[in-house]
Amino acid sequence: MDLADCYKKVRQRTEQICWPLQTEDYVVQPVVDVSPPKWHIGHVTWFFETFILKPYFMGYQEFNPNYNYVFNSYYETVGNRVIRTDRGNLSRPTVIDIYSYRKYVDEAMQGFLCGQISDEVKELLILGFNHEEQHQELLLTDIKYILGHNPLFPAYSTSYVSPKVDAVDAGFIKMDEGIYEIGFEGEGFCFDNELNRHKVYLNAYEISPNLVTNAQYLEFINSGGYHDFRHWHAEGWDWVNTNKVEAPLYWHLIDGEWHNYNYHGLQVLNINEPVCHISYFEAYAYASWKGLRLPTEFEWEAAATKFSWGKAWEWTESSYLPYPGFAKAPGAIGEYNGKFMVNQKVLRGASEATSPGHSRVTYRNFFQTNLRWQFTGIRLAR
Amino acid sequence: MDLADCYKKVRQRTEQICWPLQTEDYVVQPVVDVSPPKWHIGHVTWFFETFILKPYFMGYQEFNPNYNYVFNSYYETVGNRVIRTDRGNLSRPTVIDIYSYRKYVDEAMQGFLCGQISDEVKELLILGFNHEEQHQELLLTDIKYILGHNPLFPAYSTSYVSPKVDAVDAGFIKMDEGIYEIGFEGEGFCFDNELNRHKVYLNAYEISPNLVTNAQYLEFINSGGYHDFRHWHAEGWDWVNTNKVEAPLYWHLIDGEWHNYNYHGLQVLNINEPVCHISYFEAYAYASWKGLRLPTEFEWEAAATKFSWGKAWEWTESSYLPYPGFAKAPGAIGEYNGKFMVNQKVLRGASEATSPGHSRVTYRNFFQTNLRWQFTGIRLAR
Amino acid sequence: MDLADCYKKVRQRTEQICWPLQTEDYVVQPVVDVSPPKWHIGHVTWFFETFILKPYFMGYQEFNPNYNYVFNSYYETVGNRVIRTDRGNLSRPTVIDIYSYRKYVDEAMQGFLCGQISDEVKELLILGFNHEEQHQELLLTDIKYILGHNPLFPAYSTSYVSPKVDAVDAGFIKMDEGIYEIGFEGEGFCFDNELNRHKVYLNAYEISPNLVTNAQYLEFINSGGYHDFRHWHAEGWDWVNTNKVEAPLYWHLIDGEWHNYNYHGLQVLNINEPVCHISYFEAYAYASWKGLRLPTEFEWEAAATKFSWGKAWEWTESSYLPYPGFAKAPGAIGEYNGKFMVNQKVLRGASEATSPGHSRVTYRNFFQTNLRWQFTGIRLAR
Amino acid sequence: MDLADCYKKVRQRTEQICWPLQTEDYVVQPVVDVSPPKWHIGHVTWFFETFILKPYFMGYQEFNPNYNYVFNSYYETVGNRVIRTDRGNLSRPTVIDIYSYRKYVDEAMQGFLCGQISDEVKELLILGFNHEEQHQELLLTDIKYILGHNPLFPAYSTSYVSPKVDAVDAGFIKMDEGIYEIGFEGEGFCFDNELNRHKVYLNAYEISPNLVTNAQYLEFINSGGYHDFRHWHAEGWDWVNTNKVEAPLYWHLIDGEWHNYNYHGLQVLNINEPVCHISYFEAYAYASWKGLRLPTEFEWEAAATKFSWGKAWEWTESSYLPYPGFAKAPGAIGEYNGKFMVNQKVLRGASEATSPGHSRVTYRNFFQTNLRWQFTGIRLAR
Repeated sequence: MDLADCYKKVRQRTEQICWPLQTEDYVVQPVVDVSPPKWHIGHVTWFFETFILKPYFMGYQEFNPNYNYVFNSYYETVGNRVIRTDRGNLSRPTVIDIYSYRKYVDEAMQGFLCGQISDEVKELLILGFNHEEQHQELLLTDIKYILGHNPLFPAYSTSYVSPKVDAVDAGFIKMDEGIYEIGFEGEGFCFDNELNRHKVYLNAYEISPNLVTNAQYLEFINSGGYHDFRHWHAEGWDWVNTNKVEAPLYWHLIDGEWHNYNYHGLQVLNINEPVCHISYFEAYAYASWKGLRLPTEFEWEAAATKFSWGKAWEWTESSYLPYPGFAKAPGAIGEYNGKFMVNQKVLRGASEATSPGHSRVTYRNFFQTNLRWQFTGIRLAR
Repeated sequence: MDLADCYKKVRQRTEQICWPLQTEDYVVQPVVDVSPPKWHIGHVTWFFETFILKPYFMGYQEFNPNYNYVFNSYYETVGNRVIRTDRGNLSRPTVIDIYSYRKYVDEAMQGFLCGQISDEVKELLILGFNHEEQHQELLLTDIKYILGHNPLFPAYSTSYVSPKVDAVDAGFIKMDEGIYEIGFEGEGFCFDNELNRHKVYLNAYEISPNLVTNAQYLEFINSGGYHDFRHWHAEGWDWVNTNKVEAPLYWHLIDGEWHNYNYHGLQVLNINEPVCHISYFEAYAYASWKGLRLPTEFEWEAAATKFSWGKAWEWTESSYLPYPGFAKAPGAIGEYNGKFMVNQKVLRGASEATSPGHSRVTYRNFFQTNLRWQFTGIRLAR
Repeated sequence: MDLADCYKKVRQRTEQICWPLQTEDYVVQPVVDVSPPKWHIGHVTWFFETFILKPYFMGYQEFNPNYNYVFNSYYETVGNRVIRTDRGNLSRPTVIDIYSYRKYVDEAMQGFLCGQISDEVKELLILGFNHEEQHQELLLTDIKYILGHNPLFPAYSTSYVSPKVDAVDAGFIKMDEGIYEIGFEGEGFCFDNELNRHKVYLNAYEISPNLVTNAQYLEFINSGGYHDFRHWHAEGWDWVNTNKVEAPLYWHLIDGEWHNYNYHGLQVLNINEPVCHISYFEAYAYASWKGLRLPTEFEWEAAATKFSWGKAWEWTESSYLPYPGFAKAPGAIGEYNGKFMVNQKVLRGASEATSPGHSRVTYRNFFQTNLRWQFTGIRLAR
Repeated sequence: MDLADCYKKVRQRTEQICWPLQTEDYVVQPVVDVSPPKWHIGHVTWFFETFILKPYFMGYQEFNPNYNYVFNSYYETVGNRVIRTDRGNLSRPTVIDIYSYRKYVDEAMQGFLCGQISDEVKELLILGFNHEEQHQELLLTDIKYILGHNPLFPAYSTSYVSPKVDAVDAGFIKMDEGIYEIGFEGEGFCFDNELNRHKVYLNAYEISPNLVTNAQYLEFINSGGYHDFRHWHAEGWDWVNTNKVEAPLYWHLIDGEWHNYNYHGLQVLNINEPVCHISYFEAYAYASWKGLRLPTEFEWEAAATKFSWGKAWEWTESSYLPYPGFAKAPGAIGEYNGKFMVNQKVLRGASEATSPGHSRVTYRNFFQTNLRWQFTGIRLAR
C-alpha cells in the first residue's frame, strides 16, 4: 500500500471509531487520564500539521494558530499547551470545527503526498500513522470510561464484537536457562524504545499459555484477597485502602451478582473471559496470592511465539527502562518515549482495542502501576 | 397574567438565553461553582416535575426515573444526587434528550394548569418561577465563565446589549439615626429569607448613590492595593496570595492595556462602567483603602429608594443570617434558603444578568466571600 | 495593684500553667490550630520586647534578632514569621533557651517599670497583660489537645480542680422587645472589638439560664442527630460527613460506655456537666433538633446579668463583625482584632480555662464554625 | 566477637549518635520521610523486644503494651501502628521514658544472650543488628534534616569529621561485554534482597572512578540545567516546577555565594566534595545534560572492585526489583524488603552516614525518585 493509501486508511479508522458518539460524548473528561474524544481527533491532526505540513509543505497555511495551544499534548519543544486536567473544560473548538480542521489537513496532506517524499519525511509519516493508531486505542478506552461512568450506562455500539478467547490447556510452557536476544530487528517500523536489540541472560522459567480468567480472579476476591496486606506491595496496599478498591474497574455487584460494563452496556459478568481493567498492583497481588509471579518483559518476549496474545495488555514485572544504547531523537520527536522511562511498568501483547497490526512481539507499552482504564490483564510465570 | 402564561413566559426566557450556545457549550463545568447549561435546563424542569407534577397531577408518568438522580441539586430529602463537581463529566443525557424532557414536562404542565389550582400549589408554582429566574441568572453567569475561560475567547452574542449606567453626582446620601423597618411585607412573592419584617436600630450613616467604577478601582490596583496586607482581612490576604489575584475576574493585561472579557468577546476595558466580578474580600479591601466601608444590608435597604440599583449585585458587610422569627418550610422546599445561612455574605440589588422584575428592595442574595463569577460590585458607605 | 505587680502576676501565672509539663510536651503541634507551648511562652515574651522594650526602653539590647522571626504570630507589619503549620517542626530554640529569653525580658521590664510610664505605654502594657491572659487560655486548651490526642492519654495534673456547675431551674428568662445598649463603656480595659457602645433593637425573646448538659446532648446523639441532615447547615453537614463526626471532641465510646478525656486523663463521662468541645455546626444542629435556636450576641449581652456564665464559651448565632464606628488602631496593634472579622462566629461568656477576671459581659470571643478544641458549649434561646 | 559483645557495640553506637542532641531535637518530624530521633531509638528497641524477647525469652515481661502501637514502623502483621505522619505529634513517651525502655530491654537481652542461642534466633539477632545500623544512618540523616531546616541552623557537633575524598584521574574504567555474576554469596550476613546470586549479560560499558563534584554540578546549574526540560523525565520536570527546585537540598545562595548546611552549621560550599543530597531526577538530568548516563546496578556491582566508594549513596538507573528466585520470609520478617519493590530506584555504595562495615559490594539500598534527605550522589557511565 502506498503512503497516501496508508494515510487515508488510518485516518478513516479514527473516524469510524467515533461514528457511534453523540456530540456531548466528544467533550467530557471524567478523570485526568482520559482525554475528550474531540481532543484526540484534533491532536492527531495537529501532529501531521505540526511535524509534516508546516516544516515540509511549502506554502501551507496553518488552519488556526491557536490550535497549537489547544492540541499539543506534552511536547514542550513546541510551546505552551492546555494543562491536561483542563481538556474537559473546553467547549470550543466545537466538534464540527475539529472535523473541519481534520478535513483541511487531510486535503493538504493529499496534495503533499502526491509529491516527492524524502526518506526522513517518510519516517515521520510512518511515526504519524503509528501515533494515530495509539490514539485510536485511547479513543476506545476513553469512550468506554466516559460511557461506563455515566449513571445511565449507555451502550457504545450494540454491533461491537468482542474477540473470542480459546480455552487452552493449562500446562505451563518451560523455557531453558541461557542467553536470549531481545528487541526489534529487521524491516518495518518500530518505536525507539524497542531498540537496540541486545542479549539478556535468563534463568530457567515457566510461563502460562493463558491469561487469568474472571472465574479465577473471582476466587481471589472471594478468598479476601483485597483485604489481606500480605499479597500487596506497601504502595499497592495504600492504593487499595485509599481508593476502597474491591474489584476490577467496571465491575458492579448488583443484588449479589457481578456485572461489568462493556461496549454493549451493563452486562452480567462472563466468567470465562480474561480478567481485564486491573492495575499492576492487583496483577502482582493476584500472582502473589497464587504463589506465582508475573513474567519479566524479557521472559515474555523470549516465549511469545509459543502462546497466543492480543486480548489484553499484560502487566510484566519489568520497569520501563531504556535498552542498552537507547538514544533519544533530536527535537520534539525525541520526546516521544524516553522521558516517560521512570516509575512505569512495561506491558506486553495487545488488547481488543489495539488497532489491527499495530503491536508486535517486541512492542513495549507502559503505564503507571495504579492505572486501570486500559484493557490490562494477567499472565503468570514461575 | 394567569399562571399558564407566566409559566410559558418564564420557560421561554430560559430557552432564549441558551439560543446562542453550541451543543458543546452545554456540557462543560470548568470550575465547581459553575454548572453545565444542560444541567440547569434539566434541573429547573425536574423542579416542576418533582414538586408539582408528581405529587399533584394525577396519572402523571415520570419521564425517566434516573433523571431524579442526575438533576437534583442539593435536596437531600429527595434522594441521592450527582456530586456537584461531577456534573461536567456527564455526556448523557444529551442536550436533545433534555429538551425532550423539557417539552414533555411543559406539555404536562399545560394540562395541569388548565385545571383547578389550589393556593398551596399556586405558591409552589410561583416559587418554581422564581427558582427558574434564579437559574436564568446562573445560566448567564456560567456561560460567561465557560466562554470567558476558553483560550479562544468566543463571543456569546454580538447582539447582547449591556445596560447603560448614568453618571450621578458623587455626594453621599445622609441617613438619620433611628429605628427602621426591614424585610418584606405586603402582596406578591418573596423568599422565606426576606421574612419577617422587623425593626432595626441604625446609627446615622451616609451611603453613595453610585457604584465604584473601573477607573476608581484601577487607582486601587495601581497604588499597589493587591500587595498591601493592611487593607485585607487575614483570610482575604491568604486568598489573594494563594490565588495570585491581581485584578477582577475576566481582566487581562495585554501589552500594557487592560482588557476584560464580556459577552462580545475580549474587549478593551471600559473605565466608566461599574467594577464587576470581584470577591467580597476585594470589595472590603477597596473600601478599607479608601478609608470607607461597605454598608450593612439594613443600611442598604433603608436607603434603597434614594439611589438607582440593578447593574451589579452589591456586597454588604452583613453576614447571611435568619431574620427574627425565620422558620424553615417543612419538607424539601424548606431546604431552599435556611441551610445556607452560615459563612456567606448578603448581596443586595441586582445585576445585568438578573431576570427582569426578579429582584426587589428586600431581596437577599448571598455568596461565599471568595466568589467572583457573579456580577458583583461595590457601593461605599461611611 | 501597680503595673509592676500586675506584670509579675500575669507572667507567673503563665509559668504556673506550664509547671506540670515535660520538656517534650512543649514542642509538638498535633494540629494547625494548636501551637506548641514553648511557642506561646516565647510569643508573649516577644510581645513585650517588640511593642514595649524596643521602642520605649532606651538602651535595650534585643535578646536575639532571630527570635522576631520565630515568635511573631501574625503581625505582618513586624516582618516575616514562621508559617503557623511549621511551629511544631522547630526543636530550637529549646525550652531552656526560651525561659532564658523570658527571664531576660522580665528583668528588663522590671527596670523599665521602675521609670516614668506614659499613658500611651500604659495602654500598651495593659493590652500586653490581656494578650498574655488570652495565651494562658490557649496554653490550657492546647495542652489538653496535645495530651488528649496522645495514645497514652496522660493526665495533665491530678490536682487540677474543675469548677462546679449548679443545677438551676429550667424555666426560660423572658426579655422584652425594645432598644438595648450594647458594647463596653466606662473605666477599665476592653478590646477594640467591644467598641463603640451602641443601640440595637431586639424583638421579645427568651433565653435559658442553663447550659445544655452532656445528658441532654446524649439524647441528640442517641436519636441519630449526627445522621439526619435536616438539623444541619449544608456546610455543617459536609463537615460532619467528611470528618465522620459522631460526638464532641475528646469523647470515646469504650465497651459501650462514653468516656471523655479531661485534665485528669480518660474518665467516664459526667453526664451532669455542660456539654463542651463542640463546633458551632453542632451547637446549631442541637438547637435546631430541639426546635429552638442559639441567641444572638446582643440577646446574650442584654440578658447576661440574669444568669450565671463562665463554664464554657457559648456559641452565638452572630457573625463576628465590627460595631458601628469601629476603627483599627494604627500600626501592628491594629492587626489585633479587625482583620479576623470575616467568616467567624462570636462566642460569649468564658470557660474554665479563661484567666480569672479576664472576661466580662461585653467580651467578644470568636472562632471559625468548625473548631472544637476550645471549651465551647450551648445556651438556648427562642 | 560474640553475640553479646556485638549487641552491646551496636546499641552503644546508637546512643553515641544521639549524644549531642537536646531533648527537643528528639521530638520533631519536619517532613514525613524523617522520623523523630526518639521514635528511632524506641523502634529499634521494640524490634528486639518483639522479635526476640517476647517469642524466645521465657518469663519476659513486656515493658509497656502500648509501646507496640507507638513503635511499630510498618509491620502490618504485628498490629496497628501510629501513622507515619503522626510520629512528630507525640510528646509521650518522653525521651527519658524511652531510654528507660531501652535500658530495660538491654538488661533482658544481656540475660537472654547468656543462655543457649539457636541458629534461628542467631539469624534474627544479626538481622536486628543490621536493622539497628540502618536506623543509625537514618538517625544521622534525620538529625541533619531537623537541624538543617531550623531557621537558627544549629550545628550538630563541631567535632564531627567528614571523610576525605581523594582526587582520582578522570579516565573511565572500561568493562567488557559478557556474562557477570550478581548478588551475594558466601559466609556472613546479607539481606534477602541481595539473593539469589545469578547471571546477567552486560554489553561493553565504561564507568567513572569518581563521583561528580559540587564544582561539576555547579556547571549544570549555571548553564540553566534546572530550567531546560530536555534533560528531565516528564515526571522529574513536574517535580522541579512544582517544588521550585533550583539546587541540591541544603544549598543556600547567600549574597551571591553558595553555602550548604552540614553537621558544623551553615558553611561556604566546598566545591571539591562530591555533590550530595540530590534526587534521582536530578542525577538523571545531570547525566543527560553531560551526554552520559547512570550505570545500572549490575554495571556498578560488576565494576565495584575497580573504584573506591562510600562517600555517598549512588543512584543507579535500575528499578528496585526482586532477583530471580527471590522469596519473602514467612511472618513479619518477610515484610522487610519485598513489599517495597515497586516504583523505587536502587542505590549502591554507602555514605558518610552509613555505619562502618554495614554496606558491601552486593548491598542494595533503595528510595523513591524524588527523595533527597539521604546522602545521595552521582557516578557516571556510558
